[in-house]
Formats: sequence, C-alpha cells, structure tokens
Amino acid sequence: MLGCGVVGSEVAARLQSRAEALEERIGAPLVLTAVVVRDPDKERPGVDASVLTTDAEAAIDGADIVIELMGGIEPAKTLITRALAQGSSVVTANKALLAAAYGELMAAADDSEVRLEHEAAVAGAIPIIRPVGDSLAGDRIDRIMGIVNGTTNYILDQMDSQGWDFDAALASAQELGYAEADPTADIGGHDAAAKAAILSSLAFHAPVTIDDVHVEGITGITAEMVETAKDQGFVIKLLAVCERVTDSPAGAGLSARVYPALLPRTHPLASVHGAFNAVFVEAEAAGSLMFYGQGAGGAPTASAVLGDVVSVARRKVLGGRGQYERPFHPERRVLPISAITTRYHITLDVVDRPGVLAAVSEVFADEGASIELMRQTIGEVDDEGIQHAKLVLATHENTDAALSRTVDRLGDLDVVRAVASVIRAEGQ
Amino acid sequence: MLGCGVVGSEVAARLQSRAEALEERIGAPLVLTAVVVRDPDKERPGVDASVLTTDAEAAIDGADIVIELMGGIEPAKTLITRALAQGSSVVTANKALLAAAYGELMAAADDSEVRLEHEAAVAGAIPIIRPVGDSLAGDRIDRIMGIVNGTTNYILDQMDSQGWDFDAALASAQELGYAEADPTADIGGHDAAAKAAILSSLAFHAPVTIDDVHVEGITGITAEMVETAKDQGFVIKLLAVCERVTDSPAGAGLSARVYPALLPRTHPLASVHGAFNAVFVEAEAAGSLMFYGQGAGGAPTASAVLGDVVSVARRKVLGGRGQYERPFHPERRVLPISAITTRYHITLDVVDRPGVLAAVSEVFADEGASIELMRQTIGEVDDEGIQHAKLVLATHENTDAALSRTVDRLGDLDVVRAVASVIRAEGQ
Repeated sequence: MLGCGVVGSEVAARLQSRAEALEERIGAPLVLTAVVVRDPDKERPGVDASVLTTDAEAAIDGADIVIELMGGIEPAKTLITRALAQGSSVVTANKALLAAAYGELMAAADDSEVRLEHEAAVAGAIPIIRPVGDSLAGDRIDRIMGIVNGTTNYILDQMDSQGWDFDAALASAQELGYAEADPTADIGGHDAAAKAAILSSLAFHAPVTIDDVHVEGITGITAEMVETAKDQGFVIKLLAVCERVTDSPAGAGLSARVYPALLPRTHPLASVHGAFNAVFVEAEAAGSLMFYGQGAGGAPTASAVLGDVVSVARRKVLGGRGQYERPFHPERRVLPISAITTRYHITLDVVDRPGVLAAVSEVFADEGASIELMRQTIGEVDDEGIQHAKLVLATHENTDAALSRTVDRLGDLDVVRAVASVIRAEGQ
Repeated sequence: MLGCGVVGSEVAARLQSRAEALEERIGAPLVLTAVVVRDPDKERPGVDASVLTTDAEAAIDGADIVIELMGGIEPAKTLITRALAQGSSVVTANKALLAAAYGELMAAADDSEVRLEHEAAVAGAIPIIRPVGDSLAGDRIDRIMGIVNGTTNYILDQMDSQGWDFDAALASAQELGYAEADPTADIGGHDAAAKAAILSSLAFHAPVTIDDVHVEGITGITAEMVETAKDQGFVIKLLAVCERVTDSPAGAGLSARVYPALLPRTHPLASVHGAFNAVFVEAEAAGSLMFYGQGAGGAPTASAVLGDVVSVARRKVLGGRGQYERPFHPERRVLPISAITTRYHITLDVVDRPGVLAAVSEVFADEGASIELMRQTIGEVDDEGIQHAKLVLATHENTDAALSRTVDRLGDLDVVRAVASVIRAEGQ
C-alpha cells in the first residue's frame, strides 16, 4: 500500500478486522506486506508498525496487488507504472492521476495483462465504475450526469433549503470539514471535472483528460438565483455531464462539461441532499439509472478500495489473464462547449416600456436561437424615475455558442440595464 | 438461448445490432447458435429463423454460454443444471427458480468452475447483483431495503399523488400494462418476496428461499391510510427488507420480509415514483447507497442479460477458472417475523372518555412495548350519541410478536371500537 492517510488507515484496519470474511470471499488470504509512508516512526493506530517503510520500490516489487493512495501525479504515476510493468495489479483512488493519464495507464495494464481498478476515484463509496464498465457493457451509454462533488452539493443544498447566501454556506461547509481551507478545487468545479474526465474515458472508451472538460464553478451562484429557481420548480446543482454527441456543428464526438445548472425538482438528482453524491446514467436499452451514496470519507472510500482489492485477488486466484487490450477510440474527441446543445435561463433587468420584448426577441431570432418561455414581472422605479421590469427567458435547445452570443448582444441593448443572471438548464 | 418472448427477442436483436461493439468489448465475437422455442414456425422479427429449434438439449450441448429466459421452475432447472454440469456458463433472468434453488444452482456452477449470472432476475435493468456481490465484497452489508416491484409502486404512488383508492389505481396499472389480468403475484407481494430471497442469499451467503420470506401484500392499503401517512410526512411503499440480525429472542440470523410500510418522505426511497424500482443498501463502511432504475420491460431486462453475457464471455476469453467454491453459510437461518424488531403505526377508533389513554397505555406496558408518539383527534358522534376519537399511536422498536399481541389486545378493549389500521414503519 502506497500512502497511509485517512483512507489508507481505514483500509489497513479493515484488512485486519475483516480478514476472515475477505479470505472466504477470495479463496486465499490477503496479506498486507508493506505500507509506504514518509515517516515510518509516526504511530498509526491499527497499522502493524513492522510493515511500515519508506522504500516504495522495494515494497512494490513482488507484490500481487499494489494499492495506491498517495494522490497527485508524481511519484504515484511512476510507481503505478512500475507495478503494472512487473505484473502487479493496481487499485487506486487517485482521481487527479487518472484524469490526466487514464488511457496511458490502462494501456500499460493491458500490456501486462493485469488489472488497474479505480472504483474509489469517482464518487467514493458508490459503485459506479463497475456498473458502467461491466453491467452496462452490453448496452450503449448515451449520457452520464453526476453530482460528484459533495462540498458543492452541500453548499448549494444549504442555499436552497436554508436560504443562505454562498459565503454563509461555504463557511458552514468549512466548519463541518466538508470544505478545505482553500476550497478552490471544489467550488471552482475542478474536482468534478477530474471525475467527468474519468467517467467519459470509461463510458466512451476514449482518451478524455481534465483539460478537455469545460469547467464552470459555483462561485457566481447567488441566493437570489437559488430563490428564483425554487419559485419556478427548479433546484441548482453542480453537474458533471458526459455525453455522446452524434451531431453538432463540429461533427460527432463527446461532450464533457461541469457547470451549475437548473434541474427540475422532480428529477431524481434533485433529491440528492447534503454532501451526498449521485450519478444518473442514460443508456439505450436500460433507460435511466441512478447510483447514490457517500462520495467521500475514509470508511466509504476504503469500502470501494477493498471491493476492488477483492475483485483483483479473486481473478488472481481463478487464474487466466487479468486483462486484454481494451477498446480505445482516440477518434472520439471532446467537442468544444460552443458546439454543444444546451438551454439557458436568462434573467434581464429591463426598462419597462413598449418595444422591449420586440427588441429582445429580435436578438434571439437573429442568432437563430429560440425562446421557450418568457415571464415579465414588474420591478422598481429607479432614481431617475424609470420603471424597471424583470424579464426571465427560458430558451429551447440551441448551440451554446448561439446562446452565449445572444446573451452578449442582449447585454448591449439600450433597454436592457443588466443581465442579472445566466444559468443552463438540464434534465428535461 | 432458451425461450424467446419479449426479453429474448430484445436480446437477440441487440446481439445483432450491437455485434461490433460487443466483439470489441469481449475480444471475441458472440454467435447466437440456437434459440429454443415451442413453435419455431412463428415469425420472430429480428431473430434469424435458421437458429430456431425445439430441441433444448441439443441447443445446450457445446454452447459456451446458455441464456435462460423461459421462466418458471421446470424445465428451466433441469436445463440449467445440464448446462452447468457440461461446463457452460449460464445467464438467467429467472427469479422464481433462483428464489427456490439459489444455493443448489450456485453449488452446481462452483462444482463445474463456471459462472451462473442473474443480474436481470432482481430489479430489471438496475445493476444491483454485481454491486452487492462484487463492489461491496470488501465491506459488510447490514441491510437491504428495496422497492423491487414496479406494479405495486405504481399503484401506491398513484394513491399517494392522485388520491385514488386501491381499486382505481390497480385498474389504471392494468390499463397501462403494468399489472397482469391476474395481479396476485404483484399485489400479494410474492414477486417482491422472490427478489428478497435472491438478494438475501447473495448478500449474506445463505440459503434463503421464497418460503423463508414473510410476505404481506398491499391489498389492505386504503386511500385513508395513504392520506393519514401523507399528513404525517410519510409515504407508503411495498418494501423488501433483507437484514443481518445480531440479536433477537430467537438468536442471531437473518430477516427477509416483504410488507407495505411507512417511510419518511425525506428517505431516498420515498422519491421513487411510478413503476420505477430502487434498492437501498446499508453497509458497514460504505454507509447508505441507493440504486435506481427501471425494474422491468423488454429492453431494460435485455440490457442486464447482455451485461452478464459480456461478463461471462470476457472471462472465457481471459482464461482461468470461471468460479470456485463460494462462501456458503447454511447456519445463517431466516428468523421468524415474530422475533424481528419493527415499529408499528396503529390507528384506533376509540370512545372519547376519560381513562381511554390509560387503558391503551396499560396494554402496551403489559406487553413490554413502548409508545413513541400518540396523537388524538376528535371524531364523530355515533348513532347512539357517543363521541368518538381517532387515536394514532407510533411505537418504538419492539419485537413484531409483542406489537402484534398489543394490537390484538387493543382490539379487545371496551373503549376501542375498531382498530382502523396497522402498518409498520421503516427507514428511521
């Protein structure tokens, strides 16, 4: 085992406490031969001190299974590559590494005919990798939409249920330990983007990295936006969307994107509260599926790691090759967000006078974008005595580029005093 | 393939339409060598007529994989046993057979070192067998609570959302094709009980059959019960509960039971609407997980069958043994419902006079059962001029036997005119 933090300690403790059950399920005992740590003198409750070492290479050599829980790109990548090359199977929870080098590492596993398992790298304890990779292997996955970051889901859920503003919800998340002191990776959407890259690579057998994922975080979400969404029967969630695109201005391909979006309150993902995660999958034959559970935490993540360890160990006991060359489609490229079809909800602060709707409509028509729904409510009279109105527009599906241009041009109209908010809508 | 009804036709069609993708994922082509039907002259769109046959034994002999979609105990059992004995792996969707002979068939598969897969037999398209059997193999499953029958969920959901009575909801289910002309297996809870037996066998490595499962159906659920539940923040669902019991008056063991029960509206299972299925799993390390999707239908069930076929075929291509002796604990017996700890919600029609609460409380105290919550509302004055009251009692956890006896004795009290309803509560 490489690394022994919160998850690692839990894995080590459970390897001991569940030894009998694990041996029964595998048909052979699991022996923890080495735990690689920076400081082997630090006491680790539940971990046998005699297996602690700083020598990663010696620990790897000859191991049947290497469990990588260090995180980060290096030295994890070099060590995993070494393990795979010598014929060890690898179990990892390292989302950053997989989001950077999924294709390369899987190819290395295939070459050595061993396994590289990573259930814990996406949505913690929720079995999502095996269902997508195995259970749906006879089906065609069209779309995956996930709430894969617990911190942001907690923040948005508190804003929705308590009426808090973003800062208050973030402070609460930090107090409860859901958010780090520097919450950028979570609230900026980067953590979710790493998971979107892994899910896309797995579901579509394509080389998707975090750099291919379009990312928008939740820092721009205001209490007012949440309130307006609520009034209209929506909830705002940070979604990771992975999609097979058959037709777009940029051709066929994939979409991998992370952004806050409106979801109808009747959507299964809308009832995912607190720091929970859930992944919604649409497949051609299976229809809609959802997987729900805890996305983080020592024990839940350890459960996913140990499930992978059992799976790899069983295969070892049964004999045969561990893996062969997986399908891989480098031609399945991720299309830019501009070519993807989305829906916008746009809130405008406009001057309340005849001709406003005509001016707004003309911009949409000009960009080839179409409006599904328009709602105007009377606003305040400003200091200059001008009557304002609030105009909420929900668009039909259009390319994101056309909608984005439409928003820019709406902002330039004389009658529009401000574009109060813009948010995409999903799940309809 | 044995049998070619709605699911079988879909499987055959998808083996053709997805041939390239399947070959890519397996590393070898899948060839449908024979489809065993009663009437080979009947036209089956999408199925090559030349592989249709009535000779099941000839079709099985030499097949790498046998897909059993006949349903029922015999001849399915004899044919599956023949296939396993000769070294073919088997994929089945046959819940009746597995609920009767899970242990026996799995032992036959183990003896021949081949696979017996059955993802489609529980909750249709939802990957639940693989997550429970594989992903959570390193964890300890404590409890499974499932909505595993779409027909009854549709009926209860319509009663809840539309205010319909049971008969109207059943008629609607029949009209939409969710319920059979003879709906007994669904509304009596027997279909759910078969699935509870399979889930229990799988999760607890124990020989649980449908005869071990305590079953109550939904025919006694009235519009008034649904309404009362709603007022109190509950929804009524038909639940299949599979539980590890460490301590009970009858010792340690398992519980497998199916009955309609109150669930808090905040519970993830409460938001499972229409004919959808969902399985809620509680594991020691992973915590709470939920799996949601379509529980029936040709295409969803075919998706699950094909996922199993790909899994078995991959293993064949990789070489090695298909299976070894699985853990099996015949000592893990299913305890009678009387020994299981549950909660009741009891509604009484009582005479509104001093001493009623004392009389009721005394019965509880006498049976060692305790009341969590009591709510009294004024009722009508009857023909004899006597003022009635409605008394709703929610109990703490007690053995089902004690609660059941309490209800009997409450009914015998002079002040109690009628036990209006009794329903268990779960998920708190």
